Amino acid sequence: MISLVDLRARIEAGRLAPDAAIAEARESLAERDKSLGAILRTAPEGPVPAEGPLAGIAVGIKDIIDTADMATEHGSGIYAGWRPRADAAVVARLRALGAVPLAKTATTAFAGLDPCGTVNPHDPAHTPGGSSSGSAAAVAAGLLPLALGTQTGGSVIRPAAFCGVAAIKPSFRLIPTVGVKTFSWALDTVGLFARGVPDLARALALIVDRPAIETAEAGAPRLALCLQDFAGAADADALAALTRAARAAERAGATVFDLTLPESFARAWAAHPTVQDFEARQALAWEVATHRAALPPVLGPQLDRAQELTAAQYDAARRDAHRARRQLKDMFSEFDAILTVSAVGRAPSIATTGDARFNRLWTLMGVPCVTVPVPGDRLPLGVQIIARFGDDGRALAIAGMIEAALRAEG
Amino acid sequence: MISLVDLRARIEAGRLAPDAAIAEARESLAERDKSLGAILRTAPEGPVPAEGPLAGIAVGIKDIIDTADMATEHGSGIYAGWRPRADAAVVARLRALGAVPLAKTATTAFAGLDPCGTVNPHDPAHTPGGSSSGSAAAVAAGLLPLALGTQTGGSVIRPAAFCGVAAIKPSFRLIPTVGVKTFSWALDTVGLFARGVPDLARALALIVDRPAIETAEAGAPRLALCLQDFAGAADADALAALTRAARAAERAGATVFDLTLPESFARAWAAHPTVQDFEARQALAWEVATHRAALPPVLGPQLDRAQELTAAQYDAARRDAHRARRQLKDMFSEFDAILTVSAVGRAPSIATTGDARFNRLWTLMGVPCVTVPVPGDRLPLGVQIIARFGDDGRALAIAGMIEAALRAEG
Repeated sequence: MISLVDLRARIEAGRLAPDAAIAEARESLAERDKSLGAILRTAPEGPVPAEGPLAGIAVGIKDIIDTADMATEHGSGIYAGWRPRADAAVVARLRALGAVPLAKTATTAFAGLDPCGTVNPHDPAHTPGGSSSGSAAAVAAGLLPLALGTQTGGSVIRPAAFCGVAAIKPSFRLIPTVGVKTFSWALDTVGLFARGVPDLARALALIVDRPAIETAEAGAPRLALCLQDFAGAADADALAALTRAARAAERAGATVFDLTLPESFARAWAAHPTVQDFEARQALAWEVATHRAALPPVLGPQLDRAQELTAAQYDAARRDAHRARRQLKDMFSEFDAILTVSAVGRAPSIATTGDARFNRLWTLMGVPCVTVPVPGDRLPLGVQIIARFGDDGRALAIAGMIEAALRAEG
Repeated sequence: MISLVDLRARIEAGRLAPDAAIAEARESLAERDKSLGAILRTAPEGPVPAEGPLAGIAVGIKDIIDTADMATEHGSGIYAGWRPRADAAVVARLRALGAVPLAKTATTAFAGLDPCGTVNPHDPAHTPGGSSSGSAAAVAAGLLPLALGTQTGGSVIRPAAFCGVAAIKPSFRLIPTVGVKTFSWALDTVGLFARGVPDLARALALIVDRPAIETAEAGAPRLALCLQDFAGAADADALAALTRAARAAERAGATVFDLTLPESFARAWAAHPTVQDFEARQALAWEVATHRAALPPVLGPQLDRAQELTAAQYDAARRDAHRARRQLKDMFSEFDAILTVSAVGRAPSIATTGDARFNRLWTLMGVPCVTVPVPGDRLPLGVQIIARFGDDGRALAIAGMIEAALRAEG
């Protein structure tokens, strides 16, 4: 994998020119994506910014995020060849920082659950996860140092874990969703994929113009180890990876204790699909009304069922979410971060994109979630570090501490 | 003006066919908009739905709201001829209800403050208000029974007051903003213009699928009369209209008492432009980066100044808003609605679109605001009725009570 921080160090030292870095990325995409299916299209050749804190950084943009210089197809034939007029806000920001949004990455249709054909770089019989499939796979395969995804259920953290890369789903609306195809306006969150936590911290601090995100320190954090029993059981090797991460954190100076989330969180977890699908049926109303037959086999029926949801059910689900959010805020006075699994287990077969059940509560809470890989010899596993709303710097600092402790183990 | 409820009664009684109603609206737009400048373009001729609770209702769509069958230019040459692929969520919903989104209505550029050329139907030397200029003017001139606008500061309530029509800025995100050009994601709210409150209540209840919005009753409401002193003084005739509305409400059974908002609301009021402009610079980053010279004389410099705002200022402004929002929620246990002016006074000259200073606090609070005209012989004035978050039905019921009491006065 390519480290953004390392690349930038070489560029700042004058050992690599930004245009050479971009040319190299372009070549690597063309040569090495063939078996992966992560990249849909690349930007036209053009001048490469020589200045800016992200100059020389090629970025993959999930194909539900608008780009003015490349088609944006939302993973669906309904938008075949569709060319937005403007860049999404986050894409414009990347350009302002000197980065080059170089490629559109494969997404499931409208960021839903139907697989999109990208394979896991560790084993082509397995899914890279979804819905940000191409972004996770492209970073994992070393094609790009940075990629954007979005998460409504678990579409950033899950594919990152399946592909063995680091990722952050930041606090809700820290990165604007302007120009991002909506599935659920209360949930959709733009996130980042990179080789490691320092790369994520650098990129996020610059994108949202908050330098403290990169300089936050972990200290000796109090970590709440949490199994999310209401979501069912994780696989044995995911639980073993979680234990291993907890022990590594302790060796690095953390205090770890067990946390059982109160009943209100089980209710909020159960409310997530109601919030998501009631909004999705409105957000995708034009697609359902005019192109129902073109919707894929998981998403189509999901939106059909969503027509039955009532406003009263939606309001009750939002109240459940609100209650849990308030309670979580109070609970964070007793610990600095929650440590939990990033996914049920290793990447399942290519027939699915996996399951978001260990992610969706945190998306609904709007809190920052970071996943770091737990090294191993088979398909990757990840652990998830969750901090309080707005404390993305702390989530990254603690994740960085755990990542370093795990790498030190070998 | 055309009443949506009356039109629907004629259609339901079989005295008017939906396609005849639409044909009539089409003719009226073609003939009577010339001197007004409210209508930018009309939908291509096509089959008119014969069924649905809004069949036969022609709707004006502010031109920052996406329509698949008409260009959407955001009031700017930067988007000349721009044709979105999909309808905005609210437009798709209108079609599902049988309504016909018949025309795009004039908007200031990107819903900012620069006038767009529409005139006030009561006097062409005066502004119809902005940014939803065409929607307010078209309903006031009797061209359409319903029109959509958006409010980020005061862009629904203010033009409605200036044009002498009823309007609602609903609770934040009650109507989805999917497919609406973003200025500020924390503030942008889709609203409705119509002849009177019963028309608004019918339309909103159907659009958001919450029948209770139409059937809510005012009872004998406790009304808090509020001057918003921190925003400066309203004009004498606006204050006289407010007093007149309060007396009318009392005669109809309301209890009215004076309310002075605590200091936290002055802080929230002052925080509004920071939230708005910090988000606008991100939402319009592509336009600023690629078409700065094409931005109009108020908006361009406003976005330039916004580049200086810091994330810390934005976070502080959001905290101020959050505190006031919580406090307002508690205060609503002591009254059913707030009664205040809808604008500083009557519509100013065509050189401006007026001032949102009596609107922006409520947009930031996310609470439902309804304006009703106070009858008079010069340019119109309005009063504003504000209820707690999520209680749009109550805001409309109380507004309807005041509207009826004012009309009864003659």
